[in-house]
Amino acid sequence: MDAEVAAFSRRWHEAVAARDVDGLLELLSDEPTLGAPPYWQPLEGRALVHHLLGIIVQTIDGFTYHREWVNGRELALEFRGSVDGLDLQGIDLVTLDEAGRLSNLDVMIRPLNAVEALMKHVRPRMLAFLEAQASSG
Amino acid sequence: MDAEVAAFSRRWHEAVAARDVDGLLELLSDEPTLGAPPYWQPLEGRALVHHLLGIIVQTIDGFTYHREWVNGRELALEFRGSVDGLDLQGIDLVTLDEAGRLSNLDVMIRPLNAVEALMKHVRPRMLAFLEAQASSG
Repeated sequence: MDAEVAAFSRRWHEAVAARDVDGLLELLSDEPTLGAPPYWQPLEGRALVHHLLGIIVQTIDGFTYHREWVNGRELALEFRGSVDGLDLQGIDLVTLDEAGRLSNLDVMIRPLNAVEALMKHVRPRMLAFLEAQASSG
Repeated sequence: MDAEVAAFSRRWHEAVAARDVDGLLELLSDEPTLGAPPYWQPLEGRALVHHLLGIIVQTIDGFTYHREWVNGRELALEFRGSVDGLDLQGIDLVTLDEAGRLSNLDVMIRPLNAVEALMKHVRPRMLAFLEAQASSG
């Protein structure tokens, strides 16, 4: 594994395990994109992607990584946890830029009821964030 | 890559590309399990898993594999396609047994509307299959 990829993987796992949302920010590229479970259109921008990552890590109970795959600068990280008592399994497909920072993340989660429960928690917090951004911009 | 894993990967891609549902059957272990996008509880059994795989490959328009990761006998295969005109992205997390046959497959798909559209097509065909199995058993 490339040293930058290994460093990303180590720091990513440390930040997620510690629920260190600030630590995740340093691992994002300047213009990251995120393909979220509910929507086809990727979310764009460092603040938005970082905010959503923070909410997800805080909302999924017992969020832990399991299987992991690396192929060049592309990673696949399986995670498990639960929302409102509903077990879930998901995957983070990560693309790193040349500096070893996350430039794209596609997130898929099963099963459907857990995705819906997660959306119920995430949506109001994302809307509040977007409204705050709009009113401050 | 282990020779058996490479052989599985080659034959799996050939069968899917050709929509060769019979060809997929040979690649399944005797007691495969499948974690489907809608349900937490895995589906069990060779006939059931094979039937669902066939429906999925036939129902997703333009089903093509993209990124691929291999780690020992664990594979992660990204796919893309569409259902009812809705773009989708998914992942097959494959576990192979010692004979290089699929023993477990976890499937996650985004976005939500494509999963729901897929379920509308898949559910009646799965129910018909289960009813036929029950009445013949």
